[in-house]
Amino acid sequence: MAFQYPIKLIANALGVPPKAMLEKGKQHGVAVAALVGAKEHAIAQVQAGVDILVVAGGEAGGHCGDVSTMVLVPEVATALAKIGAKTPILAAGGIVTGAQMAAAMCMGAAGAWCGSVWLTTTEAETNPIVKEKMIAASSRDTVRSRSRTGKPSRQLRSPWTDAWEAETAPKPLPMPLQSLVSEPPLRLVDKLSQGNHEGAKQLATYWVGQGVGLMNETMSAGAVVQRFKEDFLAAYERLGGFLAE
Amino acid sequence: MAFQYPIKLIANALGVPPKAMLEKGKQHGVAVAALVGAKEHAIAQVQAGVDILVVAGGEAGGHCGDVSTMVLVPEVATALAKIGAKTPILAAGGIVTGAQMAAAMCMGAAGAWCGSVWLTTTEAETNPIVKEKMIAASSRDTVRSRSRTGKPSRQLRSPWTDAWEAETAPKPLPMPLQSLVSEPPLRLVDKLSQGNHEGAKQLATYWVGQGVGLMNETMSAGAVVQRFKEDFLAAYERLGGFLAE
Repeated sequence: MAFQYPIKLIANALGVPPKAMLEKGKQHGVAVAALVGAKEHAIAQVQAGVDILVVAGGEAGGHCGDVSTMVLVPEVATALAKIGAKTPILAAGGIVTGAQMAAAMCMGAAGAWCGSVWLTTTEAETNPIVKEKMIAASSRDTVRSRSRTGKPSRQLRSPWTDAWEAETAPKPLPMPLQSLVSEPPLRLVDKLSQGNHEGAKQLATYWVGQGVGLMNETMSAGAVVQRFKEDFLAAYERLGGFLAE
Repeated sequence: MAFQYPIKLIANALGVPPKAMLEKGKQHGVAVAALVGAKEHAIAQVQAGVDILVVAGGEAGGHCGDVSTMVLVPEVATALAKIGAKTPILAAGGIVTGAQMAAAMCMGAAGAWCGSVWLTTTEAETNPIVKEKMIAASSRDTVRSRSRTGKPSRQLRSPWTDAWEAETAPKPLPMPLQSLVSEPPLRLVDKLSQGNHEGAKQLATYWVGQGVGLMNETMSAGAVVQRFKEDFLAAYERLGGFLAE
């Protein structure tokens, strides 16, 4: 299906892509990327033949491991160098500014992969109640929990996630069953919260990374990209300043 | 006591330093630093008057919060700018290479604060069995656990930490009581492991950050510092290369 459209990239988030996908990608000139949260997974993906590695730290929104971006990016870069692989790395996890992109690129990344930062843009279809919560949130207002999908994923903390993290809570079901438990009520929460239901407004949540603590205003996606460029340049000049001293 | 010696720095790891210490520091021309793991703590420390902030991410060895270095450093830098504070930030947590230092300095840090990287140097008094484990470890071989001191601290994973993390394990006592439980047996483990006791070799552990995954050889402390400088310069040149393209 996907290859009938003028796509540029296929990115896999959970595991090594099937061989057929890698081959179809090559046939159609479409790069195949893979998200990884551990050095061992990165090596397995490169050996399977992916074109781009998205190396995501545990501060990422959505499904993630528990090694931080600051450590995982150079760890994977070193591991790839050791096996002579030249697969480019996009750093992910917590990255919502151009300065963080420059930081990741200092450590061996060829670029960055951002998710959370788009959730509070004017164009985003995020529940406006959740958008407001994200703008107000600090980096400590997220939790990595199995309660939404059955696998650990990072999301905005709310009384919903707190209840699932409580000692008396039932254990989440394995993926894909837990989504059958969590998605229907969370869809209802989204709907009711937008109808100004007080309890639903409190419960409302969505996947987001720790970078939410740096997302403090709503901007257009275009303005975000412009800000990325300015921040990146300022970070490079800042670093040069230390060497000039 | 401390001020009778020619010291250059006092660093506090748990909470705001007492006013008397800050005043004595000023009197004697000794800078007072504070370790923080959250934006709110950073602001409280600056308002109390500390001279240097050590901003430590959750990937750090020893006591730590759960926000990553990649997010916490720019979050604190932004918060300080907003209140007009010029307190310099040293980034900590997972930093064991010069490229990571350059990364942190892109994001607003004035420098870096390293702990783990010294533990595997030739000069380190680390238990040699633990040193070997650290050289072999990947970034996923640490755990943030209350089991050593009663507060969350990151340490090398071993059957000792696994037992404390098991569901059937007793809950750690609050600080400072848990150290009375953990330190005597762990000292015995250290001693027996160095006498080649197989069980003790497996149990042996020590505080270390996720950066342990990047610590792959034993070097002298001097060689580590030399490597820092080379890596820092290479990172700066790497970043400049992206702009030249």
